Amino acid sequence: MVIDCDIHAAPPPVEALFPYLSEHWQEYIRTSAFKGAVDTGYPPRAPTSVAPGAKPLTSVDLARTHVLDAHDVELAIVNCNYGVDGLHNPDTAAAMAAAVNDWLVAEWLEPEPRLRASLVVPTRVPEMAAQEIDRVGAHPGFVQVLLPVRSEAPYGNRRYLPIFEAAARHDLVVSLQFGGAPGNPPTGAGWPSYYIEEYVGMAQVFQTQVLNLVVEGVFDRFSNLRVALVEGGWTWLPSLMWRIDKDWKGLRREVPWNTQPPSRYIRQRMRLTLQPIDAPLNPKHLLQVIDALGSDELLLFSSDYPHLHEASLPEGLPDATRRKIMGDNARAFYRL
Amino acid sequence: MVIDCDIHAAPPPVEALFPYLSEHWQEYIRTSAFKGAVDTGYPPRAPTSVAPGAKPLTSVDLARTHVLDAHDVELAIVNCNYGVDGLHNPDTAAAMAAAVNDWLVAEWLEPEPRLRASLVVPTRVPEMAAQEIDRVGAHPGFVQVLLPVRSEAPYGNRRYLPIFEAAARHDLVVSLQFGGAPGNPPTGAGWPSYYIEEYVGMAQVFQTQVLNLVVEGVFDRFSNLRVALVEGGWTWLPSLMWRIDKDWKGLRREVPWNTQPPSRYIRQRMRLTLQPIDAPLNPKHLLQVIDALGSDELLLFSSDYPHLHEASLPEGLPDATRRKIMGDNARAFYRL
Repeated sequence: MVIDCDIHAAPPPVEALFPYLSEHWQEYIRTSAFKGAVDTGYPPRAPTSVAPGAKPLTSVDLARTHVLDAHDVELAIVNCNYGVDGLHNPDTAAAMAAAVNDWLVAEWLEPEPRLRASLVVPTRVPEMAAQEIDRVGAHPGFVQVLLPVRSEAPYGNRRYLPIFEAAARHDLVVSLQFGGAPGNPPTGAGWPSYYIEEYVGMAQVFQTQVLNLVVEGVFDRFSNLRVALVEGGWTWLPSLMWRIDKDWKGLRREVPWNTQPPSRYIRQRMRLTLQPIDAPLNPKHLLQVIDALGSDELLLFSSDYPHLHEASLPEGLPDATRRKIMGDNARAFYRL
Repeated sequence: MVIDCDIHAAPPPVEALFPYLSEHWQEYIRTSAFKGAVDTGYPPRAPTSVAPGAKPLTSVDLARTHVLDAHDVELAIVNCNYGVDGLHNPDTAAAMAAAVNDWLVAEWLEPEPRLRASLVVPTRVPEMAAQEIDRVGAHPGFVQVLLPVRSEAPYGNRRYLPIFEAAARHDLVVSLQFGGAPGNPPTGAGWPSYYIEEYVGMAQVFQTQVLNLVVEGVFDRFSNLRVALVEGGWTWLPSLMWRIDKDWKGLRREVPWNTQPPSRYIRQRMRLTLQPIDAPLNPKHLLQVIDALGSDELLLFSSDYPHLHEASLPEGLPDATRRKIMGDNARAFYRL
């Protein structure tokens, strides 16, 4: 049985959230120019948003037909990439996040026991994000807190501690998700010119966050913290682990809370969703990268539906590894 | 015979540059608080600046004793990481860059025929950088233009075209060198907290620049342009090439000047210095990465003296590949 760790609920139109918004916010939306978060990541009708032959998941019925029933999926984790972090009014961000979470509970999790979900939070004010996690984090359908991988500061920065404290209180995974609109450049050399740079370069932002979360000591502070890297690729991970471990030998005095080499934190506490795979032409190289990960527990199967991907797991993978990737790893990591 | 593509001349104290500075700048330095660029990258007496047993190369004699004669080096490329890009006064930056280049000619290149050098330029004003390249670029000792890999905008940005035009006029390689102080954060998620993040994370800045230079079409525009990546590691390159090539398939309409897959530009036009190697525990994985580079012409031997490194080329590399790395690749790339 398969566990699909990344399917996408289409961000709901603002009217769909009205039942979950107070009178105040309903009036605010009706009478102002604000009509909900802009879906910059996967705008409707962009060819990159939905693969040919796939359907945006605008309802739980479509998730049943196109994912759960179609592929014998035991459980699927729904990510709704609602652009909360692009909303600069903190009260608006908190209200919209809460509405999306209540909508996920009422319209996805309660009607369909095979679904789990990530809860969205107003990341710009970590204390308000923590309040939202405390408000709904105990619902058994929520298995993780979704943070867009792009952020104003790396997430290990102490300003974000309230989010990790709240996730730890509810034993929730924290997921870093492709995307985000924090306002600062998505590279370490300023603003690039083209979307291909933002898309390809998102892997570098993931690398930044992995490195930062380890060396800031977030895993040392929260012994039950687990972090999922969603849609960020994973073939870059071996090289990053080699580099961090090597440099940590010389620079570890700076981060004395790290009591073991960085790669051990990564292998113990982080997991990466399978799709999209940055697949090489020669599948031999992909098998070598999987071997170089140094653990068969790191990858979590994901379809990334409705973004269909050509590449799949290479032939020649041991059956036991394949089984772990297809379900066992997720079961253990998310405690399903 | 070995070609060493990266040894470091210690940035000279400002008095050593006086013979190469006009009366105006000598007086400016004597009477103001400005005493030359601050060497943030390798500050004197920091244990990371000079390995135990090595000597900072403060003179050509030391380069002879410790590098050229000691290791039967046929040719070595001297990089003087003088922090020109940290100087915000454009005239000061240009004057100091010119002084360093004249000092390199008079005190390193002219006395020692086994040396070549990178010329330093005031990168903040690309037109002034181009003037400096035109001023000294014809000297046969200069084989490349040194750009710190950290920059205000990725170097493919059109504002930097004058630098590439000038390099192309003189058939000089452009090298991206570990470091830089442009003022903006070195990650795609804002400012990190620790030096280990800056050091490890520099590999992500290299990845940003590689991607950007290709998709901005700099190689399409200048058919003789070659780019050397110095001290940035290289085990991350296969994964980056897979990712760019894959995403380019879907997004290439955005960058129609790219007439071939990005990895082909990289393999044809870019080279990477060997040290420091982000070596895995298992040397088998390093051999696999070298294989996955897809070309035995990409790596250029470097000692990175006086930063000594433990890791070396793995056992099991074919002799022909080893010979290319130790000298032939550099000879062809730099037209030595």
